[in-house]
Amino acid sequence: MVTPLLDDNQLDHRGLENLIEHIISGGVHGLFILGTTGEAPSLKYSLRVELIKQVCSQVDGRIPVLVGITDASLKESVYIANTSKESGAQAVVVAPPFYFPISDSELFDYYDQLLREVPLPVYLYNQPSLTKKTIEVEIARDLLERPNVVGFKDSSGNMIYFQRLKALLKEYDIPLLCGPEELLVESLFLGGDGGIPGGANVYPTLYVDIYKAMKAGNFEEALKLNQKVFSISNVLYSGGKYGSGGVISGIKSALSHLNICNDYIAKPLGKISREKEKKVKEFLSLDI
Amino acid sequence: MVTPLLDDNQLDHRGLENLIEHIISGGVHGLFILGTTGEAPSLKYSLRVELIKQVCSQVDGRIPVLVGITDASLKESVYIANTSKESGAQAVVVAPPFYFPISDSELFDYYDQLLREVPLPVYLYNQPSLTKKTIEVEIARDLLERPNVVGFKDSSGNMIYFQRLKALLKEYDIPLLCGPEELLVESLFLGGDGGIPGGANVYPTLYVDIYKAMKAGNFEEALKLNQKVFSISNVLYSGGKYGSGGVISGIKSALSHLNICNDYIAKPLGKISREKEKKVKEFLSLDI
Amino acid sequence: MVTPLLDDNQLDHRGLENLIEHIISGGVHGLFILGTTGEAPSLKYSLRVELIKQVCSQVDGRIPVLVGITDASLKESVYIANTSKESGAQAVVVAPPFYFPISDSELFDYYDQLLREVPLPVYLYNQPSLTKKTIEVEIARDLLERPNVVGFKDSSGNMIYFQRLKALLKEYDIPLLCGPEELLVESLFLGGDGGIPGGANVYPTLYVDIYKAMKAGNFEEALKLNQKVFSISNVLYSGGKYGSGGVISGIKSALSHLNICNDYIAKPLGKISREKEKKVKEFLSLDI
Amino acid sequence: MVTPLLDDNQLDHRGLENLIEHIISGGVHGLFILGTTGEAPSLKYSLRVELIKQVCSQVDGRIPVLVGITDASLKESVYIANTSKESGAQAVVVAPPFYFPISDSELFDYYDQLLREVPLPVYLYNQPSLTKKTIEVEIARDLLERPNVVGFKDSSGNMIYFQRLKALLKEYDIPLLCGPEELLVESLFLGGDGGIPGGANVYPTLYVDIYKAMKAGNFEEALKLNQKVFSISNVLYSGGKYGSGGVISGIKSALSHLNICNDYIAKPLGKISREKEKKVKEFLSLDI
Repeated sequence: MVTPLLDDNQLDHRGLENLIEHIISGGVHGLFILGTTGEAPSLKYSLRVELIKQVCSQVDGRIPVLVGITDASLKESVYIANTSKESGAQAVVVAPPFYFPISDSELFDYYDQLLREVPLPVYLYNQPSLTKKTIEVEIARDLLERPNVVGFKDSSGNMIYFQRLKALLKEYDIPLLCGPEELLVESLFLGGDGGIPGGANVYPTLYVDIYKAMKAGNFEEALKLNQKVFSISNVLYSGGKYGSGGVISGIKSALSHLNICNDYIAKPLGKISREKEKKVKEFLSLDI
Repeated sequence: MVTPLLDDNQLDHRGLENLIEHIISGGVHGLFILGTTGEAPSLKYSLRVELIKQVCSQVDGRIPVLVGITDASLKESVYIANTSKESGAQAVVVAPPFYFPISDSELFDYYDQLLREVPLPVYLYNQPSLTKKTIEVEIARDLLERPNVVGFKDSSGNMIYFQRLKALLKEYDIPLLCGPEELLVESLFLGGDGGIPGGANVYPTLYVDIYKAMKAGNFEEALKLNQKVFSISNVLYSGGKYGSGGVISGIKSALSHLNICNDYIAKPLGKISREKEKKVKEFLSLDI
Repeated sequence: MVTPLLDDNQLDHRGLENLIEHIISGGVHGLFILGTTGEAPSLKYSLRVELIKQVCSQVDGRIPVLVGITDASLKESVYIANTSKESGAQAVVVAPPFYFPISDSELFDYYDQLLREVPLPVYLYNQPSLTKKTIEVEIARDLLERPNVVGFKDSSGNMIYFQRLKALLKEYDIPLLCGPEELLVESLFLGGDGGIPGGANVYPTLYVDIYKAMKAGNFEEALKLNQKVFSISNVLYSGGKYGSGGVISGIKSALSHLNICNDYIAKPLGKISREKEKKVKEFLSLDI
Repeated sequence: MVTPLLDDNQLDHRGLENLIEHIISGGVHGLFILGTTGEAPSLKYSLRVELIKQVCSQVDGRIPVLVGITDASLKESVYIANTSKESGAQAVVVAPPFYFPISDSELFDYYDQLLREVPLPVYLYNQPSLTKKTIEVEIARDLLERPNVVGFKDSSGNMIYFQRLKALLKEYDIPLLCGPEELLVESLFLGGDGGIPGGANVYPTLYVDIYKAMKAGNFEEALKLNQKVFSISNVLYSGGKYGSGGVISGIKSALSHLNICNDYIAKPLGKISREKEKKVKEFLSLDI
């Protein structure tokens, strides 16, 4: 879920309410807040806490709420995890710390410590393009022995890695979710257990339908829906090589045009260009 | 300055006191805290605030205190800057935000906003190996127009960039400080205005002597002292390809052997290996 | 196809004969020589020419022969293409030139010139991990207008790119082949037209069976065979992070143990380690 | 030295004659042909051989001729080295092979073999931005034991590495030359033994004067001349991020405006833009 903002300091409370209801009404099975698309690292902690509380309160147990706690500082991750627990969230999601380059054994020790201190079930999160560190399959194997690891999200886009990881997680009966929505269909074909698609902020039903079609073995239907995913990706997420910025600006612009929430983006990502806004508006008028 | 710690949650207050006096007694012209070598991104904010307060209180105006405020979140950077001002620090130092990849114009907008909100003079800080973003000379030029930019630190290690930047800063009469101590001598030869060497935690006099020798035109003397810098770098900072970790562990281990402060390193960087400790101990017994 | 060698200067003629027959007997639909797995860039030109001649002569039209002509020098690529034509090859395969970093428009101009000078049908080849240059979809689009582009091989491992490329190639009715064999099954699921798996040097039937199963809609069967592909990859291709070296040494070692050809690897890739040989031998004794 | 060309297939013989005399008249101490700036990897071998022969014949022993033999194929490197020997060249220069990623021990074995087969004295050449492989100081140490290693060129731009390497080479009394001309002054300050500046194609006297000034201890004079080097670099070598292309096009364009030789650039590098030509023309009219 993106984080609806009025400015760098304030949540768009009304927009957030709308957005949550819009997404839930699409039939999704869970809500992931404060990930990369949620701009977590750009937000001050007090605002993150406010967001967690409002989301948990409004969702009110209808679907599980997963909270991103990825941070450069282990102790701040634990703080957000504790807040999440108190607010009623179901799990936390944590990618490697993203400032210092670290070795595999340092990564293991980091997670080992974190898993002891965090009071909620944990999804491990592989996101090397932003954290600059891959959770190698061998390291993942050791971490799966910890009792509170309950899931894995992979946003590497590396489907060879994904398959190796899936084979491992199968042994532990732990689900593997796919990050990039353009890979959702094939990840499900390969045994993946779901996805966390940014596009579900705007089109929640589409991704639910893909999931259902694949689980039912309706591959042709799923591949047809997959073309819609690529239409969304090609237009909404475009905008230079700075991937995350393009995705977030496309989603927020679309949500704003649909009168769901404000389109403010926190620094350091730039505001939405006129050109992009025009593109998004045209796209929303099409029947994709 | 490294940050003396007892564990991930606690400052080593006594060690901090010792360390500050040790460094000041070496004749340095200023103190930079909460940089990369200060493990700032690994520390929770409350601990950073505590550190700023103790340092400013103890230094008590004898030399300027510069505080690193680099962060993924602009608002948290501003928060630390405000705290620094209140505590009596003289300036803040800020590298690009380090989570999202951003364009040059996004970087400019980020700094533009930050410079408006920060209540202290600012050193811009180029540190691309860790922030993954270079402050291009063209962007630096535009930022120098802001009244509160008073200095620049370059840790890129790219001496072609350094020379281009120096030529620019000269026009504005703004000093350029060199990050990597192995480049201090040549940076001064090329017109640089000083350095922020991590090794000065252990050997403050050495770097002050290099500065003085170069400013006095005693190049041979400086180049001789430079060999000591390389002895320190080759032994103390070694330890695989994970640069920052090797530097911090070497410095902290040496300080611990000198009974100045504790050698705890915050997660995610690993603790000091036995092998490294042995190396450091041997090195300290030599007359370099 | 790997290139059987006695040393850096000599083909293993007998081994080459065996290898060609082994592969053809497995039912493959074509033979690609002098690719990365064929160590082309390590081989002197006279040896490449000798290889092309022997392969074309022995295959004798039973299946198409595709020759890799990727080179840092356009004129040497053209020379190998001319030799291929004279020897009776059916097509050439060409990745971007691999020394100078170039812009997209320089890449277009390069291919534009090459396509005019080459006397055979051409497969474009995207191989960014080794050539450091991606053939962007927009550039591919312009190149497809040339009459002698007849196919595309993608070894990027980026399945989002693959799907975008597939959508484009479909418009031109040009086949898209998948490089990494670990992605063969999913590439076929997504509409891909085949693969160029290095493992087919050893197990040609396996990959042909996967192709047939997928084309017949026997997805379960294909996914089961895919597990064998991963067994091969996990064991035979292992050996540190230097991908190509691990693949080539695994294949050559296996072929040597099967008495098909010699296992010499041309400089600069290292010879096969004892440890790897042992692993390969054990693997070959299993019924995968 | 750049390689004057009429087109991808033909040397500009007259231009080459002019260029050699222009450079020698500037007082340089040697001539390095077929390096990166000489576009060696883009040229077919027969043209390289022709070039070597004409250069050696025309220089006729007035200054040493060094020939670049860097290649993806060891055997082709040896072939060019043999040709160089027969033509009367004094030494060869060889960077790591540039196609396959290799380990340090594979690099050592490669050089070990090459040094045995090459009939001329060898300069090792560190050029990681293009070959993607650094000659680590530890590997260099082992290679220096070979009798025919007589020099080292470093184009890494990494002056920490440069200083470590210099300390090593001093033990063996082997000279270290600096690649990037923007670092020539500081490399000499740090004990370097010379440079191989591309700009000497156009302004040979300038770089000779810098060398002389530094060796005579006239540092102020050298630093003043260094500003001219930056004027050349900032204008002549500009042109986007594709470094080599900008350097070669700037030099060739300037030489063409000075009626020394043709400005054709071999594929895959693009031809000189109108905009760049204009810039170069203006620059040449200035008294730098």
